[in-house]
Amino acid sequence: MSDSTVKPSIFECQRRVEFSDTDMAGIMHFSNFYKFMETTEHAFFRSIGHGVHETYEGYEIGWPRVQASCEFFKPVRFEDIVTIRLSIEEIRRRSVRYAHQFFLTKGEDETLVASGLMTTACVRLTEEKGRIESIEIPDALRSKLEKAVADS
Amino acid sequence: MSDSTVKPSIFECQRRVEFSDTDMAGIMHFSNFYKFMETTEHAFFRSIGHGVHETYEGYEIGWPRVQASCEFFKPVRFEDIVTIRLSIEEIRRRSVRYAHQFFLTKGEDETLVASGLMTTACVRLTEEKGRIESIEIPDALRSKLEKAVADS
Amino acid sequence: MSDSTVKPSIFECQRRVEFSDTDMAGIMHFSNFYKFMETTEHAFFRSIGHGVHETYEGYEIGWPRVQASCEFFKPVRFEDIVTIRLSIEEIRRRSVRYAHQFFLTKGEDETLVASGLMTTACVRLTEEKGRIESIEIPDALRSKLEKAVADS
Amino acid sequence: MSDSTVKPSIFECQRRVEFSDTDMAGIMHFSNFYKFMETTEHAFFRSIGHGVHETYEGYEIGWPRVQASCEFFKPVRFEDIVTIRLSIEEIRRRSVRYAHQFFLTKGEDETLVASGLMTTACVRLTEEKGRIESIEIPDALRSKLEKAVADS
Repeated sequence: MSDSTVKPSIFECQRRVEFSDTDMAGIMHFSNFYKFMETTEHAFFRSIGHGVHETYEGYEIGWPRVQASCEFFKPVRFEDIVTIRLSIEEIRRRSVRYAHQFFLTKGEDETLVASGLMTTACVRLTEEKGRIESIEIPDALRSKLEKAVADS
Repeated sequence: MSDSTVKPSIFECQRRVEFSDTDMAGIMHFSNFYKFMETTEHAFFRSIGHGVHETYEGYEIGWPRVQASCEFFKPVRFEDIVTIRLSIEEIRRRSVRYAHQFFLTKGEDETLVASGLMTTACVRLTEEKGRIESIEIPDALRSKLEKAVADS
Repeated sequence: MSDSTVKPSIFECQRRVEFSDTDMAGIMHFSNFYKFMETTEHAFFRSIGHGVHETYEGYEIGWPRVQASCEFFKPVRFEDIVTIRLSIEEIRRRSVRYAHQFFLTKGEDETLVASGLMTTACVRLTEEKGRIESIEIPDALRSKLEKAVADS
Repeated sequence: MSDSTVKPSIFECQRRVEFSDTDMAGIMHFSNFYKFMETTEHAFFRSIGHGVHETYEGYEIGWPRVQASCEFFKPVRFEDIVTIRLSIEEIRRRSVRYAHQFFLTKGEDETLVASGLMTTACVRLTEEKGRIESIEIPDALRSKLEKAVADS
């Protein structure tokens, strides 16, 4: 499966750029694109009835980020509406690779402003706070991820 | 004890305004002053050999914020050096009231740019994550806070 | 006009606590309450057809924060829905004093979790970037603020 | 020039993880690594006598981010000291490609915790706020960047 082709979107959400998201260049600070990527992933999980932190077979699982990248094509500004479309590039045994496309949305018009990739790993949170252990994605969750891709 | 007179400073630290701290008005976003207040409190705790999260008599204690206010007199900008002076307004049985003065520092010159007050409560963290219970400030820590005020 | 009585709400909005809003105590970091106060004010301005940055009689006006305080009663956590109710405590000649009440919202249930006050000043932005000059609130805008209070 | 080999470090700085940098997983939120990359770049510019926003031949130039990626190997926690080492992967005509290595630093011990890449473009800020135009890196600045690489 190639990373170069963006798969069809499985989920989308919108976000209005807030004043505190901007920087002195008058545009949204680039670090917020990564936060939006995470927020979109979490909203997607809610949409399929799961949580990024949830209990599974008696232990807690989580999804720390392994890698995240973003390319920035055009700036977005205060009060702009940004539509974020999430797709899944690959469901691996122990991790998922997402792609995010960011569109500046003005009425019917949409402009692609940024494009991101993020890999998250499925882990078991051990009792020692903050310590984690890589695990295979639980079957029930994997099925829902695969269904989301198939339905897209 | 009156809140209207700032007590002598017991601790000071400096911080350079970063690009991500600024907003589209070209100045440091006001929410960062509250973060700096907290960071200064934590650095003060380290300076007296304590942590804002530490184990005491077998349980974990913490210091959640009960109240925080700040007045803004002048803006600070990217790469400005801000000196934050911490004083203690009052050491109560279960809480501490701090005052923070923020100075824009250019060589020998200092300008007061903001002034904050923050009350933190001493709590015991219970096993249920995120649940807390107000406790009296442990004696050993209280002595150090009082000494810091007496020495100032 | 007393600050001790909260006026009826003139505007309300909701916000879901995001993962990046939380801190290691497992709750929303307190600095975000101040960001939410600002975001609510901006949404209110949009609702009355104005912007916090807008052109008026040929110059640009803005609303820097003069003071902001918040009391924290209960924590909010990841994915909690927070309802923010805005009221106006006082419309002065050159500034507005807002009150914000934060409610944790679960279905029909609401719990007051925090309460804030914020004063913003009406300023004219001069050509020198970041320099500002206090002005009286333009009449057209003042009328809309007064109407919002009267209608509440 | 290959991206796969990290060039020798041309600059390094340290940062202590603050409470507001952490998230509910008990570790530094991943978005802060991108902020640290930018802060390190800016500190490097200051170290060679330049600014990321500066006037050049009568116009203002800036360095917006074109792309930024980061791989996360191990978490860092509250009060950890992070050493960030900056190297230059490539100086292009209109952009610079940096690599950042993040080390958790405890006394003499260092552990590589994350590794980032960031491309910034040299632009001329036009009078219309927020509009930018790609330009060649000014010769005086290019010489200093090349000297920093040669000296490393």
